[in-house]
Amino acid sequence: MQKINTSPISGMQELTPTFQAEFDRLKVGIQDAFFRHGFQHIETPIIDRTEILLAKAGGDTEKQIYKVIKTAEDAGSSDQALRFDHTVPLARYTVEHLNDLSFPFKVTQIARNFRGERPQKGRFREFYQCDVDVIGRDVLSIDYDAEVIATLVDAIRVLPLPDFVVRVSNRKLLTGLLEELNLEHQSGEIFGIVDHAEKVPPEATSEALRSLGLGEENILKITAFTQIHGNRTEVIPKLRNFGFTNENFNTGIDELERVLQSLELLSPDAHIVADMLIVRGLDYYTGTVFETIVPDHRDIGSICSGGRYEDLAGHYTDHKLPGVGGSIGLTRLFFVLREGGFIRLDDVKSVDICLIPFSERELASTSELAQKLRREGKSVDIVLTDRRLGDKLKYASRVAKFAAVIGEDETKTRTYRLKNLADGTETDNTW
Amino acid sequence: MQKINTSPISGMQELTPTFQAEFDRLKVGIQDAFFRHGFQHIETPIIDRTEILLAKAGGDTEKQIYKVIKTAEDAGSSDQALRFDHTVPLARYTVEHLNDLSFPFKVTQIARNFRGERPQKGRFREFYQCDVDVIGRDVLSIDYDAEVIATLVDAIRVLPLPDFVVRVSNRKLLTGLLEELNLEHQSGEIFGIVDHAEKVPPEATSEALRSLGLGEENILKITAFTQIHGNRTEVIPKLRNFGFTNENFNTGIDELERVLQSLELLSPDAHIVADMLIVRGLDYYTGTVFETIVPDHRDIGSICSGGRYEDLAGHYTDHKLPGVGGSIGLTRLFFVLREGGFIRLDDVKSVDICLIPFSERELASTSELAQKLRREGKSVDIVLTDRRLGDKLKYASRVAKFAAVIGEDETKTRTYRLKNLADGTETDNTW
Repeated sequence: MQKINTSPISGMQELTPTFQAEFDRLKVGIQDAFFRHGFQHIETPIIDRTEILLAKAGGDTEKQIYKVIKTAEDAGSSDQALRFDHTVPLARYTVEHLNDLSFPFKVTQIARNFRGERPQKGRFREFYQCDVDVIGRDVLSIDYDAEVIATLVDAIRVLPLPDFVVRVSNRKLLTGLLEELNLEHQSGEIFGIVDHAEKVPPEATSEALRSLGLGEENILKITAFTQIHGNRTEVIPKLRNFGFTNENFNTGIDELERVLQSLELLSPDAHIVADMLIVRGLDYYTGTVFETIVPDHRDIGSICSGGRYEDLAGHYTDHKLPGVGGSIGLTRLFFVLREGGFIRLDDVKSVDICLIPFSERELASTSELAQKLRREGKSVDIVLTDRRLGDKLKYASRVAKFAAVIGEDETKTRTYRLKNLADGTETDNTW
Repeated sequence: MQKINTSPISGMQELTPTFQAEFDRLKVGIQDAFFRHGFQHIETPIIDRTEILLAKAGGDTEKQIYKVIKTAEDAGSSDQALRFDHTVPLARYTVEHLNDLSFPFKVTQIARNFRGERPQKGRFREFYQCDVDVIGRDVLSIDYDAEVIATLVDAIRVLPLPDFVVRVSNRKLLTGLLEELNLEHQSGEIFGIVDHAEKVPPEATSEALRSLGLGEENILKITAFTQIHGNRTEVIPKLRNFGFTNENFNTGIDELERVLQSLELLSPDAHIVADMLIVRGLDYYTGTVFETIVPDHRDIGSICSGGRYEDLAGHYTDHKLPGVGGSIGLTRLFFVLREGGFIRLDDVKSVDICLIPFSERELASTSELAQKLRREGKSVDIVLTDRRLGDKLKYASRVAKFAAVIGEDETKTRTYRLKNLADGTETDNTW
C-alpha cells in the first residue's frame, strides 16, 4: 500500500512516552510552584478573533500568526486565528470577566501557543509557555514585581539546571537617561541597540549609536550606563551618582531599589543582580524588566523573562489595568536542556508496578492486589497478554519500576515477591 | 474610546477562576485514575497535516474541520488543520514511533480537540477529551477491552455524579444476526437505525426498518435482539438460545461473555450491564462497544464511550495494530454537570492561606512564614497592596481558605492566628 508520511509537521514538539513523562514532571513542578505562590489557573480558548489577537500587534507577530478557517461556516468567519501568546488573551479575559475577578488578580496560564515561524533548530511553531501575571485595578504595588520574580525563581528551581542568575533593571532608567541627553525622539532605536548589545562586540554597539548621529560624549554616557551591574548596594549608589534631576530616571532608581530590597525578603536564596543591559525589546514594558540566564551555559539563552506593564488592556477598555508578569518558554527550554544533556531519564518510568498473572486462573487475585495498590496511589499495570513469561517480564522492565509474578502459591498465601527492575533486588510482601 | 467585543468566540469554554479550579480538579482526578491503571501520557501536536487528519474521515468531520493558514509561508502550506479527535493523531504517532514503544501500548491523551460545529447550547467547538487506548502489535488480548472499561469506571468515579451504568455489547452480534437474516448488504443502515432507537418511540424504529424493505419477521427478530439486556447470566443464555451457527454471532457471544467475566474481576463494584441496543454509530469499531449513562439523569447523555477496533492505522502502515479505547468528553460533561447543579464550588478556593503583613515592616517576617508554609506544600498568597486592612481581609476571603495578619507581636513571638474564612473559627500557631 502507499504509505502516508507520519512525521509531525516540522516545528512541532512530539515526544516519546519517556521524554513526555519527564516533560510533564517539569511542567507540573513549575505549575506547583505557581500554585504555592497563590496564583490562580485560567485557560483561554486557543482560537480567538483576529481583531483581538492583533489589536496591538504588528510586524513579525502579524506575519507569524496562524489563521483559522471553519470550512462549515460562512465566509465571514475567517477572522479567527490561533493565539500566539498568553498576554493578549489574558487582556481580553480580564476585561470580559472583570466583575468576577478579585484584584490584585494573580493568574497563571500554562498551555501551548502558536507561531508560524520558519522551521529552525530549537524554534517551535507550537510551544508551551508557563506564564504568571499579577493584574491590578487602577493601581498595583511595586512589590508584586518582586513577587513575580520570586515565584519564577521557585519554579525554575524545579528544572535540571545549574545555578542561574536573574538580571533585573527598570526601563525608566534608560528612558530618563535619553530624556536627560535630549535623545528621547530616538529612544525606540536606542532601546533596540542596547537590547542587542550582548550579541555583538562593544565596538559594534558604539558604531550603531554613532550611525544614529549620536555624539561621542552621549555614546560614552550610554555605554557607561549599560555597563552598570551588580548587587543592590553596588548599583544604586552608582545610579544616584549620575545626579540627574530627570523624573523618570529617579523613579527608575527608586523602583529598582525597592524591587531588589523586596526580593531580598521574598527570595532570599536567589542569585539576583541589577544589570542595565536588560531593557527587553518590547515597548509594552514600562518599568521593571528581567531576564534569567545560566552563566555557565550562556547558550541556553534566557530561561524566563518579563516585566511591568502600565496598561494590560488599553485596546479593549478604559479601565486602567497595570500588571507585571513573566514567562518560562518550556518547549524551547526542554529542547535545549535535552541537547545539553541535562535531561536524565533514569527515573521517569510512569508505571510503579507491573503485575503478571502466571495464568488466567490468577486474574482474580492479581486484580484484587492491583486494586489494593491503586487505592494506595500506585500506578499498576496488569499484563493481560497471552505471551511467554519471559516476554511479559521484558515488557515489564520497559514500562515499570517494579514487577511481581502472581501464581498459585502467591494467590494462596497472599504474598508476592516484588522485583526492582533497575537493580534486580527483591522484597517479599503480603496483601 | 471604541471598545472591542471581549467575549470568547461562541462554542469555546472559558471559565472564571473558581470554575476553572473545579474543572482542573476533575481533569486531574481522571488523569490520576488513568495513571493508576498504568497508562502512559503522550501529547500530539494540535496542528497536523490535513492528509493525515482526513485519511479516513469524511462527511461531517470533513465539514467541521478547522483548516489553518500560515500567513508567513508559501501557499503550499495550507494543507494543515486542527485535530478533531485523539484517535487519528494517535494512529500517526504509533506508526511514527513504532520502534520506541512497548506493546501493548497503554496510552492516554487528555487535551483539547477542535470541530467547527455550528454553535449550539452544550456543543463546543474546542473541547477536552480524556482518552485511554491500548494498542497491540498484531494481536491484543480481549481482556484489555475489560481493562479499558475498568479504567474509565475508576475515572468516572472522580466526577460528582450519581450512580452510573456501563452498557456493553459487541458489534459482531448484530453483524452476525444480519448475516443470518441475509441482510448484511443493508447493515450500514440497520446499525444506524439501532443506534438511534433509544431516541425515538419503538414504532418509529420498526417503521424505519420497514422502509428499508424488511419483512415483519425480520423486524421482529431484530427488535427482539435489541431488547436483550441485563447481567451476564441473564444475557449470555438468551443469546445462545438463538441457536445460530453464524461465526460472527458466536464469536460475539464468546467475546461479550469474556469481557463481562473479566470486568467482574477487574471492576468488581461497577454497575455493568450487557445491552444489545449499544452498537455505536462508527464503522470504526469491530467488536466490544460500550457507553455509560446515569439512569436517574438520562439527559446527561453518554458520559464516556468507546470500543474495540481491529486496525488503528491501516491508512499509514501495513503493520496490524488492533486496539481498544474509550473517551470522556469532559468539556461537554462539565457543562451539563453545571447546568444540572452537580458542580459545587464550596471547596475549590485555590489558595490555602492568605498572609497579610500589618505594615511594610512585617514583610520580612511574613515572607519567612510564607516560605516555610510553601515548603510544606501549601499555597500561600502574601497581600502586598497598600489598601486598608478591611479591604485586605475582604480580598483574602474571596481567594483563600484561611487568613492571618502578621503584625509586630506576631513577628516577635513567631506566632500567628489562622482564621478559617469559611466558618470564622481561629487557631493559634507558631513558626
